[in-house]
Amino acid sequence: MSPDPRSAAGFARRWIAPAVTAAGLIASLGAAAVTPQARRPAPARPPLDERYRAAAERLIGAALASDRAEQRLSELCDGIGHRLSGSAALERAVTWAAAAMREDGLEQVRLQPAWVPHWVRGRERAEMLEPGPQMLSILGLGRSIGTPKGGLTADVVVVRSFAELDSLPPAQVRGRIVLYDVPFTNYSETVRYRGSGPHRAGRLGAVAALVRSVGPVSLRTPHTGAMGDSLPRIPAAAVTIEDAEMMRRLAARGQRVRVHLEMDADTLAPALSHNVIGEVRGRERPDEVVVVGGHLDSWDVGQGAMDDGGGCIISMEALRLIKKVGLRPRRTLRCVLWTNEENGGRGSVAYHDSLRGRFDSHVAAIETDGGVERPIGFGVTLRRPGTDSTDAAATRRAMELLRPAARLLAGLGADSITADGGGADIGPLMRRGVPGLAHRTTMEHYFDWHHTQADMMDKVDPVELRKNVAVLAVMLYVLADMPDDLRHP
Amino acid sequence: MSPDPRSAAGFARRWIAPAVTAAGLIASLGAAAVTPQARRPAPARPPLDERYRAAAERLIGAALASDRAEQRLSELCDGIGHRLSGSAALERAVTWAAAAMREDGLEQVRLQPAWVPHWVRGRERAEMLEPGPQMLSILGLGRSIGTPKGGLTADVVVVRSFAELDSLPPAQVRGRIVLYDVPFTNYSETVRYRGSGPHRAGRLGAVAALVRSVGPVSLRTPHTGAMGDSLPRIPAAAVTIEDAEMMRRLAARGQRVRVHLEMDADTLAPALSHNVIGEVRGRERPDEVVVVGGHLDSWDVGQGAMDDGGGCIISMEALRLIKKVGLRPRRTLRCVLWTNEENGGRGSVAYHDSLRGRFDSHVAAIETDGGVERPIGFGVTLRRPGTDSTDAAATRRAMELLRPAARLLAGLGADSITADGGGADIGPLMRRGVPGLAHRTTMEHYFDWHHTQADMMDKVDPVELRKNVAVLAVMLYVLADMPDDLRHP
Repeated sequence: MSPDPRSAAGFARRWIAPAVTAAGLIASLGAAAVTPQARRPAPARPPLDERYRAAAERLIGAALASDRAEQRLSELCDGIGHRLSGSAALERAVTWAAAAMREDGLEQVRLQPAWVPHWVRGRERAEMLEPGPQMLSILGLGRSIGTPKGGLTADVVVVRSFAELDSLPPAQVRGRIVLYDVPFTNYSETVRYRGSGPHRAGRLGAVAALVRSVGPVSLRTPHTGAMGDSLPRIPAAAVTIEDAEMMRRLAARGQRVRVHLEMDADTLAPALSHNVIGEVRGRERPDEVVVVGGHLDSWDVGQGAMDDGGGCIISMEALRLIKKVGLRPRRTLRCVLWTNEENGGRGSVAYHDSLRGRFDSHVAAIETDGGVERPIGFGVTLRRPGTDSTDAAATRRAMELLRPAARLLAGLGADSITADGGGADIGPLMRRGVPGLAHRTTMEHYFDWHHTQADMMDKVDPVELRKNVAVLAVMLYVLADMPDDLRHP
Repeated sequence: MSPDPRSAAGFARRWIAPAVTAAGLIASLGAAAVTPQARRPAPARPPLDERYRAAAERLIGAALASDRAEQRLSELCDGIGHRLSGSAALERAVTWAAAAMREDGLEQVRLQPAWVPHWVRGRERAEMLEPGPQMLSILGLGRSIGTPKGGLTADVVVVRSFAELDSLPPAQVRGRIVLYDVPFTNYSETVRYRGSGPHRAGRLGAVAALVRSVGPVSLRTPHTGAMGDSLPRIPAAAVTIEDAEMMRRLAARGQRVRVHLEMDADTLAPALSHNVIGEVRGRERPDEVVVVGGHLDSWDVGQGAMDDGGGCIISMEALRLIKKVGLRPRRTLRCVLWTNEENGGRGSVAYHDSLRGRFDSHVAAIETDGGVERPIGFGVTLRRPGTDSTDAAATRRAMELLRPAARLLAGLGADSITADGGGADIGPLMRRGVPGLAHRTTMEHYFDWHHTQADMMDKVDPVELRKNVAVLAVMLYVLADMPDDLRHP
């Protein structure tokens, strides 16, 4: 059953302290025992953070004492490796994750099927023929088409912006390779060139596009990622900062820059993949759900350790720990390890569709896709149902409701609550009005490694990994147990 | 003519101020005009740094105002790229460098032939078959032999030190691939595993060796470099920090780690290469020589920008600037761009041999092979002739003689004089007693890029490049012009 949060009963619920199911245990955790008489106005009721302090202490202590998260992350990253949608490795990871959830005592463990795009990279090779020759270090962009067999050779025209591209005489673009040499400012700003750079160059008659990798530093490190699906589609690849700057320097010296590009990229028939789901069933309102999860798929380079093996592991591990310390929240906690976040989002659509319109059952959804560097807190956003626009008042209210829970995380430095919730996988739920949270970390080096061969497990600091588990476990427990909830009032 | 510095005349020379050749110019540079009467004791003579201050100001001003060094570096790095001994690219660089020296007005420009080893990398591929599969990112080590056709497959044994290797039961090494997972401390310490790791593993029956790359950071970045030439020689490659730690984690979890390695590496017949030499002839003692230079060859990855394109360019450019501002020092300045520093040192031997024992003619040799990050000063060392042991007293004396020159560089933060001169290319000269200097920089990130695909020109800060030219030009001018010199008294 999914009570309507906008009903009077839903409103009243905000003022009900946690109920007792195992009185001794819960008392020992500092959650006040409640009787009907307790349903009086506030004075006697301790603040939310005080009521959950003991539970938080146990969860934090258990998380920091356990090496399970790093063991699990090594099983996934070292044992299986990267896992692009459509690959056998991704389905091995699906099988592994379901087994790990069962082993960890999660409940209702199940696979949720989703047909996912099956893009394959194939062989890639790029060489600057003039001047030179010098090999270029590239990674084709997801969704790219391949080059003609044997490759293509063309002069390169270097631009620093869309405006510069549009200002060029058509003859300087037609038949050429457009190189977007756009330095990294921030992800959302710079990634536009990866997203729409190829088709904008293609519209002007370019035969291929090279995009400076979306990242702040490089050791000749190309960053892959998806290009948009607008037409026309031309062969498109990321080049390194080094190679982009080299070609810009040469062009600035008036040199002809000529590149040979070979890409076997192809899109095969859709493949069957799966979201992996496990739960801790709610003791009182099992049909009210708090969803949490990262995405199990990755690009086909590195190990997808930060993006997003870590996010998967801390979500699974938070649920395991809540059970392990003997807690069972009022509502159901549901870990969803999403498939196909990177190049299609079909996992998130499959989950959305499976709810058959019962979005009210979801009191919150947390996306854990911001890496596992030092945790700093959570972002939260509510959208106006049916739209992509933020409901500012409901978001402010949610932020206020989260602050007491955040105070429990102050000792980990993770007590910030900001108005920037969300994530690709919970996007479809948020558009239905489900409160969306983003687990947030410093992301100090996240974009150094993002979508590269370097995204491997050595980048994960085991201490920060444990802290992330602790932060997530506390927030999840409070969210699933607190009398009130974040939904639209 | 090469006066004996240990003669009375040589001793007296220390107290002779710079002679006048073009009185107006030199006076304007602040070098005091000298007459025979000036050969009196010290009181009237200004300190060395005061006498050369005006010359230093002109050189520093000219160096910081000129973009020639970055243009030249781009011509070499972007226009030609990497240049391994035996490659056509190296000989293109030789031709380019000689032409550039002539264009810059250097004198006696010439090529000095040297037969160099011709090692070729060929195709390389490494894959971890169990668990996994996962591709490994490798670079074969210079001098390595190839694997049998079709590659070899073996279990991996991970060690953290030679002591750990030697403590293993023979059966745990024989027929296996030894992985040295030794974290970077400093170059000289850690590089031992690249140098002698392969043959030490081979002696114990290992079929191949993998060496954790010698560098402090990684974005899945293998660092190549030469292995030693001791026997037996087995296939040997550098792996990334990421991959080394992955295999260590797996082995620590008790997992079998099985790797397939394919390397086509081969050593061909020696190839003809060349040192490139250009001079500013001395106005008074042209047969006394100060040598300066970096090595023109590089590994076959990246562009050899820091190692050692930058060192070549600042040496050439320092000589050009000295001529350009109208200076001509007492002695000859000789820029030698060495060939084959990386894997043989045949260029330095060819130069040594060409002197036919007349080492006394060389008053100093400066190696510029420490990158072109922020300059900090110079190291200097004198060896006991015929040995590798340091002559501590002569080194101290040389340091004292250099301090006034260093004071001229204080405004650039490059006034440190330390007792650590030397370098691979000037090693043969130093063993003959020639005072050896090392141009020194912070090397803050040098080993991040060293021997990798990332050693490209974007790593060179153009401002620091100009400062390095300035520092080198001032030191060279003073060394070649000062009355005294650094040689063994």
